[in-house]
Amino acid sequence: MSIPEATNSLTFSEGDLPLPVLWGCELSAARRSYTFRVPEEWQYEHKLLLCTVCLGANARDECHLLELVPEDGDSRAPVLLATLKPSVTPTVSLFGMELSPPVTFRLRAGSGPLCISGQLKPGKEAGEGEAEQPRHPRSPSRQGTRSRKEQERSTEKMK
Amino acid sequence: MSIPEATNSLTFSEGDLPLPVLWGCELSAARRSYTFRVPEEWQYEHKLLLCTVCLGANARDECHLLELVPEDGDSRAPVLLATLKPSVTPTVSLFGMELSPPVTFRLRAGSGPLCISGQLKPGKEAGEGEAEQPRHPRSPSRQGTRSRKEQERSTEKMK
Amino acid sequence: MSIPEATNSLTFSEGDLPLPVLWGCELSAARRSYTFRVPEEWQYEHKLLLCTVCLGANARDECHLLELVPEDGDSRAPVLLATLKPSVTPTVSLFGMELSPPVTFRLRAGSGPLCISGQLKPGKEAGEGEAEQPRHPRSPSRQGTRSRKEQERSTEKMK
Amino acid sequence: MSIPEATNSLTFSEGDLPLPVLWGCELSAARRSYTFRVPEEWQYEHKLLLCTVCLGANARDECHLLELVPEDGDSRAPVLLATLKPSVTPTVSLFGMELSPPVTFRLRAGSGPLCISGQLKPGKEAGEGEAEQPRHPRSPSRQGTRSRKEQERSTEKMK
Amino acid sequence: MSIPEATNSLTFSEGDLPLPVLWGCELSAARRSYTFRVPEEWQYEHKLLLCTVCLGANARDECHLLELVPEDGDSRAPVLLATLKPSVTPTVSLFGMELSPPVTFRLRAGSGPLCISGQLKPGKEAGEGEAEQPRHPRSPSRQGTRSRKEQERSTEKMK
Repeated sequence: MSIPEATNSLTFSEGDLPLPVLWGCELSAARRSYTFRVPEEWQYEHKLLLCTVCLGANARDECHLLELVPEDGDSRAPVLLATLKPSVTPTVSLFGMELSPPVTFRLRAGSGPLCISGQLKPGKEAGEGEAEQPRHPRSPSRQGTRSRKEQERSTEKMK
Repeated sequence: MSIPEATNSLTFSEGDLPLPVLWGCELSAARRSYTFRVPEEWQYEHKLLLCTVCLGANARDECHLLELVPEDGDSRAPVLLATLKPSVTPTVSLFGMELSPPVTFRLRAGSGPLCISGQLKPGKEAGEGEAEQPRHPRSPSRQGTRSRKEQERSTEKMK
Repeated sequence: MSIPEATNSLTFSEGDLPLPVLWGCELSAARRSYTFRVPEEWQYEHKLLLCTVCLGANARDECHLLELVPEDGDSRAPVLLATLKPSVTPTVSLFGMELSPPVTFRLRAGSGPLCISGQLKPGKEAGEGEAEQPRHPRSPSRQGTRSRKEQERSTEKMK
Repeated sequence: MSIPEATNSLTFSEGDLPLPVLWGCELSAARRSYTFRVPEEWQYEHKLLLCTVCLGANARDECHLLELVPEDGDSRAPVLLATLKPSVTPTVSLFGMELSPPVTFRLRAGSGPLCISGQLKPGKEAGEGEAEQPRHPRSPSRQGTRSRKEQERSTEKMK
Repeated sequence: MSIPEATNSLTFSEGDLPLPVLWGCELSAARRSYTFRVPEEWQYEHKLLLCTVCLGANARDECHLLELVPEDGDSRAPVLLATLKPSVTPTVSLFGMELSPPVTFRLRAGSGPLCISGQLKPGKEAGEGEAEQPRHPRSPSRQGTRSRKEQERSTEKMK
């Protein structure tokens, strides 16, 4: 797995049964952005459920802005997610936000360290059929249930 | 798509399978209000799930008030959603709020920039039947499940 | 509809299909309490899902206390919901709170303006049967699913 | 019903259909702890869903600590739930916490008033069978669905 | 049960029907980390649902950082969950975070006391089949539903 240990952490299972796994990454002046991709060898699709964003103990008392950046080939503007400042709000809750990897976080302002925590929730096995899904029209799990092949295809279309 | 890039961002898929897509917009003294409409070419109904509201790094230390404005022809008062101030609360969580586009946000006070983030969750295809829905009497997905034609019709009635 | 426009706002549909509708009210020294009742002409039962409480831009820097007041004939004490102060916490999230109208909000302390936002989620048509409900023993939608007639009846009993 | 009006409030229905009911209690130096028990005459089991904790307008600017205390006969330590201070955080959201009465709250530090709000969500009728429940393996409603007799029995075992 | 009473508390039932049980632990300079394991004698799998993190009344006015530490044999970095400071944010909500024990919390910075509250939600009996689960494709309860034996097996694989 190619994710550098210094800037993120993953506690995952490679066993046969998928479990939600803890996820985290750290942004700072030295590394302003980070893209999370589900490792190739994982046999299940995953959603990234964000938990919290918080500032490290040695963060300077300045505004830290966290944004989500669209994928390459997408000309739209980044989306600002949270503004933190050590003396005002050092922790922000992002529970409820579900993202489909790949996902790119960027520190728009501030020198960090700013840490993002989340959980990877397994969907279904790559290539598994969608047959049962239409019975739950409000299922939020549609996000991230497409095989990566399908995602790449539609990303192609969007360029 | 006619949404100006400077004030909002959309990461969406035009593929055949609907995915929740990231959404964001920015309000400021230069652009105090913004109306989000589901693009005509999208074949699915969408709900807008709000995530966070936060202030940009250069926002002045004054009160910023975000409100939702009823559609034209609706004489009711706007609804105040959040009050932010850089030195007090630069980020407010709005997770749990689901809106049916079209939705108009307005900066009632403050000069911004104030950024709203959210996700667009696809409902069902426009024109798809409602036959199965009554089986889920507490389904929140009734919001946004009417075809746009039906919405326009009832908006007509309300005038 | 008899709700004064100055202190509340409703964006609702009178069409044949129920939609969650935005709701808001404003309390101040001039109007310390407000009771929300589902308008007689609405053919569906509704739950009020609270979203946020926030202070207006010109609120004085004093404690603002929002409470819920029991109905007439109920001798119990009001329930304090949130304490806000412009310089400390100008916005409080109340997502997750579902109430059965009629609901009375009161500003116990502070001179406001204090604004409450929420959404009205339609239940089922007044008079519709309860036959299917017992199959979902944990359904939260039991709140507000009784016809108004039934509610009035049991309110009578409580006096 | 023996609950003193000064320190708590309940808006409930004694009718034949259970409704979520508003609940609140107030702790202070004069009354540091409060135990909520479902009244004997209620024919349904109930869960207590916490909403918010907030400080009264005249609370001193000191730390207020709210804890949950295990039942008599349980030797474990109390669990600290929230720390509030008027000048820092006068309101804390506890949405998402579901408790099985009896529940004992205690003000570990601070002189209050500190007010807790919540909702009582009816489960099923006392004595009702559990036959259907195993079909929903993730149902959170297992908490509080045992008849009080069963609870007393297992409490006996724990001593 | 070997969990020391001074640093954690558990209100649980040893009866035949699983109930969500309150859970708490306290970290400080004297005890910087704590690992929660489901006691051997419990016949059900459990998920730990976090509620809040808060600082004790006598915590020094310095940054307190709470992190989750991967299990032994997992070389990845810890994940920072929350940053608290008595004068800024003495309580942080972590509702929505579900963890599969064993779980290790560590106080990365600050001298505490820092208290974590949560609830243990029973899954199914150890050894119980997975046969019914596939009918709920979006069930989050997959986490923690494996028997401990299976978990140990896959942990072995990961080393």
